Amino acid sequence: MTMLEHIREPQDLKALPEEQLAELAAEIRHFLVRAVPRTGGHLEPNLGVVELTIALHRVFDSPADRILWDTGHQSYVHKLLTGRQDFSKLRARGGLSGYPSRAESVHDVIENSHASTVLGWADGLAKAHQLRGQDGHVVAVIGDGALTGGMAWEALNNIAAAKDRPLIIVVNDNERSDAPALGGLATHLATLRTTDGYEKFLAWGKDVLQRTPVVGQPLYESLHGAKKGFKETFAPQGMFEDLGLKYVGPVDGHDLAAVQSALRSAAGFHGPVLVHCLTEKGRGRQPALEGEADHLHTVGVMDPSPADAGRSPQVCASVTPPGDPSWTSVFSDEMVRIGAEREDVVALTAAMPEPVGLGKFAEAYPDRVWDVGSAEQHAAVSAAGLATGGLHPVVAVRATLLNRAFDQVLMDVALHRCGVTFVLDRAGITGADGASHHGMWDLSVLGVVPGLRIAAPRDTGQLRAQLREALDIADAPTVLRFPEEPVAGPVPAVDRIGGVDVLHRAPRPDVLLVAVGVMAPVCLRAAGLLTARGVHTTVVDPRWVKPVDAVIPQLAAEHAMVAVVEDNSVNGGIGWAVGQALRDADVDVPLRTFGIPERFPAHARRGELLADLGLTPAGIAGRISGAMARKEKQT
Amino acid sequence: MTMLEHIREPQDLKALPEEQLAELAAEIRHFLVRAVPRTGGHLEPNLGVVELTIALHRVFDSPADRILWDTGHQSYVHKLLTGRQDFSKLRARGGLSGYPSRAESVHDVIENSHASTVLGWADGLAKAHQLRGQDGHVVAVIGDGALTGGMAWEALNNIAAAKDRPLIIVVNDNERSDAPALGGLATHLATLRTTDGYEKFLAWGKDVLQRTPVVGQPLYESLHGAKKGFKETFAPQGMFEDLGLKYVGPVDGHDLAAVQSALRSAAGFHGPVLVHCLTEKGRGRQPALEGEADHLHTVGVMDPSPADAGRSPQVCASVTPPGDPSWTSVFSDEMVRIGAEREDVVALTAAMPEPVGLGKFAEAYPDRVWDVGSAEQHAAVSAAGLATGGLHPVVAVRATLLNRAFDQVLMDVALHRCGVTFVLDRAGITGADGASHHGMWDLSVLGVVPGLRIAAPRDTGQLRAQLREALDIADAPTVLRFPEEPVAGPVPAVDRIGGVDVLHRAPRPDVLLVAVGVMAPVCLRAAGLLTARGVHTTVVDPRWVKPVDAVIPQLAAEHAMVAVVEDNSVNGGIGWAVGQALRDADVDVPLRTFGIPERFPAHARRGELLADLGLTPAGIAGRISGAMARKEKQT
Repeated sequence: MTMLEHIREPQDLKALPEEQLAELAAEIRHFLVRAVPRTGGHLEPNLGVVELTIALHRVFDSPADRILWDTGHQSYVHKLLTGRQDFSKLRARGGLSGYPSRAESVHDVIENSHASTVLGWADGLAKAHQLRGQDGHVVAVIGDGALTGGMAWEALNNIAAAKDRPLIIVVNDNERSDAPALGGLATHLATLRTTDGYEKFLAWGKDVLQRTPVVGQPLYESLHGAKKGFKETFAPQGMFEDLGLKYVGPVDGHDLAAVQSALRSAAGFHGPVLVHCLTEKGRGRQPALEGEADHLHTVGVMDPSPADAGRSPQVCASVTPPGDPSWTSVFSDEMVRIGAEREDVVALTAAMPEPVGLGKFAEAYPDRVWDVGSAEQHAAVSAAGLATGGLHPVVAVRATLLNRAFDQVLMDVALHRCGVTFVLDRAGITGADGASHHGMWDLSVLGVVPGLRIAAPRDTGQLRAQLREALDIADAPTVLRFPEEPVAGPVPAVDRIGGVDVLHRAPRPDVLLVAVGVMAPVCLRAAGLLTARGVHTTVVDPRWVKPVDAVIPQLAAEHAMVAVVEDNSVNGGIGWAVGQALRDADVDVPLRTFGIPERFPAHARRGELLADLGLTPAGIAGRISGAMARKEKQT
Repeated sequence: MTMLEHIREPQDLKALPEEQLAELAAEIRHFLVRAVPRTGGHLEPNLGVVELTIALHRVFDSPADRILWDTGHQSYVHKLLTGRQDFSKLRARGGLSGYPSRAESVHDVIENSHASTVLGWADGLAKAHQLRGQDGHVVAVIGDGALTGGMAWEALNNIAAAKDRPLIIVVNDNERSDAPALGGLATHLATLRTTDGYEKFLAWGKDVLQRTPVVGQPLYESLHGAKKGFKETFAPQGMFEDLGLKYVGPVDGHDLAAVQSALRSAAGFHGPVLVHCLTEKGRGRQPALEGEADHLHTVGVMDPSPADAGRSPQVCASVTPPGDPSWTSVFSDEMVRIGAEREDVVALTAAMPEPVGLGKFAEAYPDRVWDVGSAEQHAAVSAAGLATGGLHPVVAVRATLLNRAFDQVLMDVALHRCGVTFVLDRAGITGADGASHHGMWDLSVLGVVPGLRIAAPRDTGQLRAQLREALDIADAPTVLRFPEEPVAGPVPAVDRIGGVDVLHRAPRPDVLLVAVGVMAPVCLRAAGLLTARGVHTTVVDPRWVKPVDAVIPQLAAEHAMVAVVEDNSVNGGIGWAVGQALRDADVDVPLRTFGIPERFPAHARRGELLADLGLTPAGIAGRISGAMARKEKQT
């Protein structure tokens, strides 16, 4: 039995003698390197925080002390130390979540969440502790990349305001976050990293100056009397202290004694304090460290056999069979071609150039792509500026993350009629990453933005064509959305009416089936099942799903029922928009909408979740034929 | 003819001799103090930027140089200097916008926008200028309060990344923004303000140290050779320089020569530079300066006669007759009562405690209210932390501004099932402030959030009751929304079925009229008009409009048509949600939805805009009777 297996809760960890901790860390790394590739998951970020997590659980008393993880994908070590060592179904149905989960453990506080939010949570918890007279520490762990998000700034500004409210911020600085974190903050962190500690510098300066008489009085005293005081004058105090936070560091995040000492010192300080901890992402797994950072964030499922050890892990395409192009790679290649044709096309990414498919564009046109950090709001607003300056920006982000910039898409891009194209990957149900990663809200929230147009390509040919159509629209925002699922073959149209592709037609049809994007092949199969039951359908792909094409209500009027199928929340989705188009045309044909109901789907495979939701050919066919049968009974 | 009247464009301003500028500034103040109170509008912020705006237009060449205003309510002086001096219909239909407007002038770049976005716009424009080889400067003016917004941080981080891309940030620091900007940034700005300029301090240090030999070499040289270098070591460089921005200041923003000199120096620096400019909000209008800051941001319509000069301007209630309670004041009083009953109720505001009605609560329970700055995201996330810590936070913000925290409401508050109550004032059509201020999106975007419940009280009695109902819900977010319009009398119910109030009933009714919130009295009057035309109605107020009460489809089934009337975007609104509830119940009664179509309503009075949109008794009755007539023809 390993030492790790003996640890059922943080108390067991506390009982270990100091000299055994290095061995425990080695065991944990060994466990992670073996276990995570079997299921897929975040390996590198967790290898980087092994010693930090051990130190946190030795210094603090979870759950009385609250240990909060930003983003949450760096919580595997925390899981191992808090009684969760069965990783066999990590991120799969019935297994551990890839993120903290309150259902799993009392030691988890924040579940899935997007980046940069942990400091806001910590501020709220610390205020509650203070107001209710509770003693426990609040400790927030945040990566250097996440510090570039505006949320983090808003929180720092608030945390620094109360000098007497204890709160410990641990900056896990691995110098690269999801992608090289360019920008002023990264430069500043680098400065702090090379400073070798304030205190040393301070001691040196004091020593030199005290030996230096100036007009009868030591220079130290002269300066000490100056407005800013000695320490503030001499120490490169950094912006965190400028804001009013006590700064401790930098600390080697793999030195167990040093990290524990820094955390103990922070715990004894009765105010807001920031511990700057330097770690290596992927520490202890050499092949990972040699690749490029944002390739290595997540690993897909692979056999952790020695033969595989040198293989580059798959990212963002863990469900696409090797060799097949992914949606993202098709987008990536088309962007490079367009870049050669149009000088005005530029691209933006929020901290993940490779995962969203802008790596090749960046290589080909390095002057025309910007990684803005974990800052979706800035991506949207600066895109409005770029468009106003005569360029056509393509903002490529995960579908779920554009939610963070809704106001900026509305007020800055759309109100100003800027030609900005948002390309959303991982739209719809995404699967293993759970609630915070499903891209199921975009059609609803972007659907209310005046003038904005949304394309949901049904195959990669459509993706390429619609990307070009979007780039030809200069006076309104456009959106393309596609999923993480494997690329299927082309879905041919039998006709085009207005902007709408007809995919299937029957004589004297009963039901108009409107397929949104990749639901097209599912709808075609549903149509086949319905035909067998004597229900005849027309299947159409509107291509541009917002605004609703005027052809839809015209076609609807020729059918006894309309059904809309989408991989998005039913609430506010394309089904609802079709309903409005029918009403506006006084077409009161019964409508049925198929999508994701109002809930947060948990982690499971995409196929499993779609089946749960009835978004399968059989599920859709069954519900439509049922509805038709009830209608006939009523009349 | 005044000097001001001779200025038709910035060139005319440039032609003025330096010594006449002070007189011009006095004329502008005189103009504003006379003109703005006649129409209502933002007086104080504009009185603060008179000299700054003159200096900007003398140093830079708009429109080749782009002068960008954050939020835009400080652009009146800019309007006066760019050919717009007819303020007689400011913020009224057909008159000047209260914000920059590209339709008005080539000198306007950003129109309405929410706070903190200007730096993102500037970053995009500067990048476009650089890429396209354009010469013009990009100058962004932002208030100290707006710097607390996360957007500003994201932008600063990106702007600082390119040392060779010119961009000028002017921080208009009036030390109070919309409310005392507590927090780390405010403290830091205060430090910079008292520093009396880096250069002086630097010169002093250099002088002292060069006269101080250390081991045969001047101490200055020793320190200069140290890692951080002399300047960075000695100057209290501040966080802006830490990030990599050149810092100029602080400059007295009312000293015309000093401001012009600072701007010229910034214009000559070929990289990102920040000019820290100190101004007094309301400068030159004494009564304003004596009051409390966030009372004085906007003035309502008032007679600018001497008798009124000392009267406290009205805010946020400019359409409420004096003496009548506003929606906000009813909320405000009820919060104080609740605060006495429940210790767990706490409150948050984003930079405007008074306007959103938390002033009295803050007075009564100062430990239980937090002003987080212009930081709606932080308000939402820290509320999740507070709720997790055992409190029930009430987050009071303008309806339009909660859009900025959509992702945080979804992922942090709702996913974690936190009992947080959001109170949205100025919901619906707001009027004179134009596109960015209408609170017409909340029902749509919040409507997709799983588990979230929305109340739209129809009168102030309901507001009080529903606030208490919301505070009793501990495991889900709740929202209350109310408008800016005057409080009308109570709207009594004749019955309650389930959670739904029946307001009007007729024998053998044809139409079920669902009234959302303050549309109740409008619907009752529409019902009267319909009765006269032989169309009989049931009028109901669902009270909690999301989720849709199960009673609604039951009632719908007893009518020939359902009509939903709301003061929100039709897209994604309650009308669409009712449609889904009917479908889920297999009730295919024709539905008609009345609300705001997909566009950005311009500035005009609320009543004018509602009339344009047909959201009047006559408009609604006309469209319903028309739809009924067409239905009868069809059958």
